[in-house]
Amino acid sequence: MAVYTEVSDEDLGEFLTQYDLGEMLSLKGIAEGVENSNYLLHTEAGSYILTLYEKRVHREDLPFFLGLMEHLSAQGFSCPVPIKGKDGEALRELCGRPAAIISYLEGLWPKRIHPWHCNRLGRALATFHLETKGFDLRRENNLSVGGWRPLFEACRGRADSVEKGLSAFLAEELDYLESNWPKGLPEGVIHADAFPDNVFFVGDRLSGIIDFYFACNDFFAYELAICLNAWCFEPDNAFNATKARQLLQAYQEVRPLKRAELDALPILARGSAMRFLLTRLYDLLHHPEGALVTPKDPTEYCRKLRFHQEVRGPGAYGLD
Amino acid sequence: MAVYTEVSDEDLGEFLTQYDLGEMLSLKGIAEGVENSNYLLHTEAGSYILTLYEKRVHREDLPFFLGLMEHLSAQGFSCPVPIKGKDGEALRELCGRPAAIISYLEGLWPKRIHPWHCNRLGRALATFHLETKGFDLRRENNLSVGGWRPLFEACRGRADSVEKGLSAFLAEELDYLESNWPKGLPEGVIHADAFPDNVFFVGDRLSGIIDFYFACNDFFAYELAICLNAWCFEPDNAFNATKARQLLQAYQEVRPLKRAELDALPILARGSAMRFLLTRLYDLLHHPEGALVTPKDPTEYCRKLRFHQEVRGPGAYGLD
Repeated sequence: MAVYTEVSDEDLGEFLTQYDLGEMLSLKGIAEGVENSNYLLHTEAGSYILTLYEKRVHREDLPFFLGLMEHLSAQGFSCPVPIKGKDGEALRELCGRPAAIISYLEGLWPKRIHPWHCNRLGRALATFHLETKGFDLRRENNLSVGGWRPLFEACRGRADSVEKGLSAFLAEELDYLESNWPKGLPEGVIHADAFPDNVFFVGDRLSGIIDFYFACNDFFAYELAICLNAWCFEPDNAFNATKARQLLQAYQEVRPLKRAELDALPILARGSAMRFLLTRLYDLLHHPEGALVTPKDPTEYCRKLRFHQEVRGPGAYGLD
Repeated sequence: MAVYTEVSDEDLGEFLTQYDLGEMLSLKGIAEGVENSNYLLHTEAGSYILTLYEKRVHREDLPFFLGLMEHLSAQGFSCPVPIKGKDGEALRELCGRPAAIISYLEGLWPKRIHPWHCNRLGRALATFHLETKGFDLRRENNLSVGGWRPLFEACRGRADSVEKGLSAFLAEELDYLESNWPKGLPEGVIHADAFPDNVFFVGDRLSGIIDFYFACNDFFAYELAICLNAWCFEPDNAFNATKARQLLQAYQEVRPLKRAELDALPILARGSAMRFLLTRLYDLLHHPEGALVTPKDPTEYCRKLRFHQEVRGPGAYGLD
C-alpha cells in the first residue's frame, strides 16, 4: 500500500493552476504500489494519476523515466503519458517532493495468470524493446550484477535468520554469477519491473504497461528472464513451461532472439532471481517498525533460483 | 487505509455480468475509509465505487443505509446512489461479503477547515434532516447514551494506560450523561458521522456527503453536536466559535432549532465527545497486532469533552 504524502487542497489547487486541466473534481489515494504516493485525480479534463516521488526514486532519474514514457507513447506504445504544464514541463514539485501528473491508463492487472496473458506480454515487451531504440537517454541498471554484492554484504550477517544456510547459498551463487555473467548480448532500454501488477488488460487485450521507475539500459533478454520468474511460476512454485513458451514465442514473433540470448536465458534467470531475492531480503531485514508496506517474501525467489540452477538450456523454458 | 478484501478479475467479471455497466475497464483499491473495502471501478458506463462490507457493518443494516442513499438522492440531495443490477437489486455478494456498486461522487474533503466550510455543512445537514422525513425505515443509534456503558466496561481496566485518571473521569462523566441525557427533542434520521472526510467540496460548493454507514434515528441536534466536535476545534484543540456560529446559523436558515434543542447543545456535545472518545479508546486497546489501520487518538476527544463541561449555554457556540 502506498500513499505516504498527504496533499492539502490548497497545495493541490495551487499545483493545478500550472496546468490546463480545468477545475479539480476529486483526489483519492490509491492503495497500490510501494515506491511512490499515487492519487487518482479527476479534473474537468478527465482522469489522471498524480504521483509524488518518494525517497526511493532518485530525482536525477526522473527525466529518464518521464522521457521514456513520452517517447514510447509517441511511438504508439500504450503506457501512461506525463502531462505537461502550461510551461511545457511535466516534472515539478509538490509538498517538497518531485511530482508529475500522468494520464490514466485503463486496465486491470491479472491476479491469476493464464498462458494467454504471457503471450500478450511477450509481444508487448518485444515491441517495447524495438521502440525504445530511438530514445537517446541512458540509465545504468544499478540493480544488475554489479549491484548485488553490496546488497548481499548488507544482509549476509542476518540472512540465516530468514532461511537456514541462506547466507552460504547466496555467497556461492553470487560468485558464480559474477564470474559467468554474459557479455555483449543485444541491449537497450528495458522496463526491468514488468511484474503482473504493472501490466494491464481490458478483456483479453493487453491495454498497457505502467510503472517505469526501474527502467534502465540492460540486455533485452534480461527482461525476459525477469518475466520468466514473475509470470511463469505457479503459486506452489512449480514452473509452468507452457506460460514460458507463450512468453518467449510471442516475443520472438516481433523480435527474434539470437542464439546467444537463448543460451544465456538460464543464467539471466538465475541473476534476475538473485536481484529480487536480494532486494526483498534487504527490505525484510531493514524494514522499519510500523511501516505501512508489508515486506515481500524473499524465499519465494530462493526457490525460483534453485529451479534455474538445474536448467541446462532454453528447452526448460518451453522452447524446442 | 482500507482495502481488506482482494477481488480477483474472475470474481469481479462474474459480478459485473449482473449489471448493465458495459465492459470493466479498471479497478483500484482506495486508501481511504477504515470500515470497508473500497475500490474505484471504471466501466464503459462511467466511474463507480465498489464497496465490500467488512465485519464492522452489520448485514441487516445494509437495506437501511442503501435505502437512505437512494431516498435522499431521489429528493435531490447530493450523495452516492446505489446502482441496481439487472434484477433491480443493489445489494449482492462478492468474495463472501455483502457488496454494492455506488455512483462516484466528485469532490474533495477539506484537509484544512475554513468557516465557510462549516456554513455549507450546516445548510446541507438541515436539508438532510428535512429530506429524511419521508424515509420510513428506522435504525436505532446503538452508539448513543445506552451504548456507552458497555464500551466503557470493556476499556475501564486499561483506560489509565492511555491517560492517567482517564477511567475515573469517564466513570463520572458517564454517570452524569446517563442521568441528564435529554428526552423528547425533535428527531429523525441523522448521518451521525459527518466528519470532514465524509463531506466533499468542489471549489467553494459542497458537492455531497458520503459514507452513510453510521446513519440512524436520533435527535437532529445530536448531529450538530457531533459536528461541533469534528469541525470546530483547531488542530491545537482550541475551540473556534466562528466556525460553530457558521455551522449553527446556516443550519437554522433551513431548519430553525427549537429552544430545547439549543439548550441541550452542551450536553449533546459532551455526549458526542464521549461516544468518539469511547470508540477510539476501545479500538486503541483492542487493536490487533499488525492491523492495517492506525488507531485514532482518543485523548483528542478527552480535551473536547472537558471544553464542553465548562460550557453553560449555546452562547459558547457562537450564538447570541
